[in-house]
Amino acid sequence: MTATLKFIGHIRTPYKVLEECPRNVSPDGPDCEIVLDQPYHDGVTGLVTGQKILVLYWFEGVDRDRVLTVRRRFPGEDPRGTFSLRSPHRPNPIAAAEVVVRSIVGGRITVKGLDCLDGTKLLDIKPAMKPES
Amino acid sequence: MTATLKFIGHIRTPYKVLEECPRNVSPDGPDCEIVLDQPYHDGVTGLVTGQKILVLYWFEGVDRDRVLTVRRRFPGEDPRGTFSLRSPHRPNPIAAAEVVVRSIVGGRITVKGLDCLDGTKLLDIKPAMKPES
Repeated sequence: MTATLKFIGHIRTPYKVLEECPRNVSPDGPDCEIVLDQPYHDGVTGLVTGQKILVLYWFEGVDRDRVLTVRRRFPGEDPRGTFSLRSPHRPNPIAAAEVVVRSIVGGRITVKGLDCLDGTKLLDIKPAMKPES
Repeated sequence: MTATLKFIGHIRTPYKVLEECPRNVSPDGPDCEIVLDQPYHDGVTGLVTGQKILVLYWFEGVDRDRVLTVRRRFPGEDPRGTFSLRSPHRPNPIAAAEVVVRSIVGGRITVKGLDCLDGTKLLDIKPAMKPES
């Protein structure tokens, strides 16, 4: 069984090729811009600067049949299951990053330190869960 | 443009109808079970009890064209944008919950306090981001 995702915008980052992308999201990384397509602009109403959000985006060109991964950086380690890693190679390559809203102008939200290629497709934005939950 | 999701399992909770579902994930809630379909069982290799994971799942039967929401619990409040809320009514109804692994047996992971209906479709499991990131 399947479900269909709609791309609702894209993400602008400084990274044009995979080799430039950092391994993880970094709160001190460079400015990145979340750009919503026009029909979704009003969806940011109520989001405020300084708020922590969860951004969901889509990794393209990955291996979606990956269940086990041999990590080359850890020679001798047994293969690791896909669900114990944040690798983009997974059945549903949905990336999830918690970042702080730096500014909101129209349908453009500036944040810092996303880890994806410039032009990555956007899936969702929602308030981050509170730390206590 | 679209992308296709594959359901990789389902979630067992005590909630048979929407009215029973809590509004949010709760670390003290009842036991829930994340059940992976057989082809994905090896994907849990390396996950350990006590670890915090991010679980992604799919809300069915929602309004995927919702951009603004009038919240009935807050009379007089202006409509809120979909992306400033965690409501299931959103263009891509992907729920994201951080929970702690209580046990792992085969392809079944026990956690506490998920907020979804019994039988909800599972999309992904990944290690939660570290609090500092």
